Amino acid sequence: MLISKSQIKLITGLQQKKYRDKYGLFVAEGPKVISELIQSGMIPEMFFASETLSVAGSSAILITPGELQKISMLKTANNSLAVFKTPKVSPIQTRGLIVALDAIRDPGNLGTIIRLCDWFGVSQLVCSTDTVDCYNPKVIQATMGSIARVQVNYTNLSEFIQQSDLEVFGAVMSGETVYECKLPSEGILVMGNEANGISVALEQQLNHRITIPRFGELQATESLNVATATGILLSEFRRLTGK
Amino acid sequence: MLISKSQIKLITGLQQKKYRDKYGLFVAEGPKVISELIQSGMIPEMFFASETLSVAGSSAILITPGELQKISMLKTANNSLAVFKTPKVSPIQTRGLIVALDAIRDPGNLGTIIRLCDWFGVSQLVCSTDTVDCYNPKVIQATMGSIARVQVNYTNLSEFIQQSDLEVFGAVMSGETVYECKLPSEGILVMGNEANGISVALEQQLNHRITIPRFGELQATESLNVATATGILLSEFRRLTGK
Repeated sequence: MLISKSQIKLITGLQQKKYRDKYGLFVAEGPKVISELIQSGMIPEMFFASETLSVAGSSAILITPGELQKISMLKTANNSLAVFKTPKVSPIQTRGLIVALDAIRDPGNLGTIIRLCDWFGVSQLVCSTDTVDCYNPKVIQATMGSIARVQVNYTNLSEFIQQSDLEVFGAVMSGETVYECKLPSEGILVMGNEANGISVALEQQLNHRITIPRFGELQATESLNVATATGILLSEFRRLTGK
Repeated sequence: MLISKSQIKLITGLQQKKYRDKYGLFVAEGPKVISELIQSGMIPEMFFASETLSVAGSSAILITPGELQKISMLKTANNSLAVFKTPKVSPIQTRGLIVALDAIRDPGNLGTIIRLCDWFGVSQLVCSTDTVDCYNPKVIQATMGSIARVQVNYTNLSEFIQQSDLEVFGAVMSGETVYECKLPSEGILVMGNEANGISVALEQQLNHRITIPRFGELQATESLNVATATGILLSEFRRLTGK
């Protein structure tokens, strides 16, 4: 056995936030995500694979498919799993374009939004404390390695916005059409919870209420998915102010 | 027992495409999706719930939570499940804005794209025959009822494009920046497979190769998720030509 019982216990524990916080570790699965993290300068604390595998100078310890399945959080394990140290988070710099998430609950949505921030050059993502943990394994799988390039802070959003002097934009159901807005190169874009949108208190702190117009029939779908909406809005910010 | 063994067998069979095709039926779960389908004029062939439930004149047959779990494809069943007839698909009208999907495999992506088409008033979605089935239960759950308002055809994409006289746009990794393109109100937008993009043969049929520019560092995420990219491109088409 090249993986010990205590390692198995530690790794499966990391599916829970309290153990990720306690040990300052998180899990990534599959060669694609693992190699993106390693290439971004992260060094795996542990690295296991069910076949011979070496990524950018890090070699995996060979274990059986059964052992890999035991430590995997996937229904069907990929061929590899690595454990990384949670990077230190720097204090938020209130400049540039910042995305702020209010109570996003779905790990897939958060992962997709991190990937979108990476694509559109948004290096800071600020989350309310009740947003899903960015080191949740499902988030890590959805980010495809972007987590290494986007800084994610958890804080009281209302206080953060109050202390910042950036203009604050929020995505709402009936605001100004985003295509007609003057979007700046610096600012905060607030995206709300999947079911309830931006909380009432936070909505009062917005300087601009913006909306992606609907072009379908009146009875069309009642809202866009929050990750899709974030993508469209970031595209608009960058179209108007980007290089 | 208000649900028979043969009904249980039929409904669980509908998780597989061959039985959906054989019986011309599909399954939707949860009051939100079911009510959107009923409100769009679809009539449930069967409608079960584990609590008293009536939607727009259709009343569910009350069954036990255990029975509902047995017929559900969800890990944890919602409170209701309905079976609908697969609607007849009309022939494709080669006018307006049409989205064409080349070998999309992930049900969540297809569901999100159907919802996006609904939002942006795209009433026709044309899929290659190897795209995931739009009546797959995971697709139905992700569409949130939009499946009732977007017509989905499966066909040979290459032949369809050849026979149409619409301009053909395709999302590629290094094409013309979409923000600088003249996008028409009518045309075909081709989106490619999650891993491989648009197939080589189909790429040769494109009139315009368009790209969502990346604003992050060089090492940023290698591509956008196909559903997110579809959302951004549809937003651009409608921004330029919409009402």
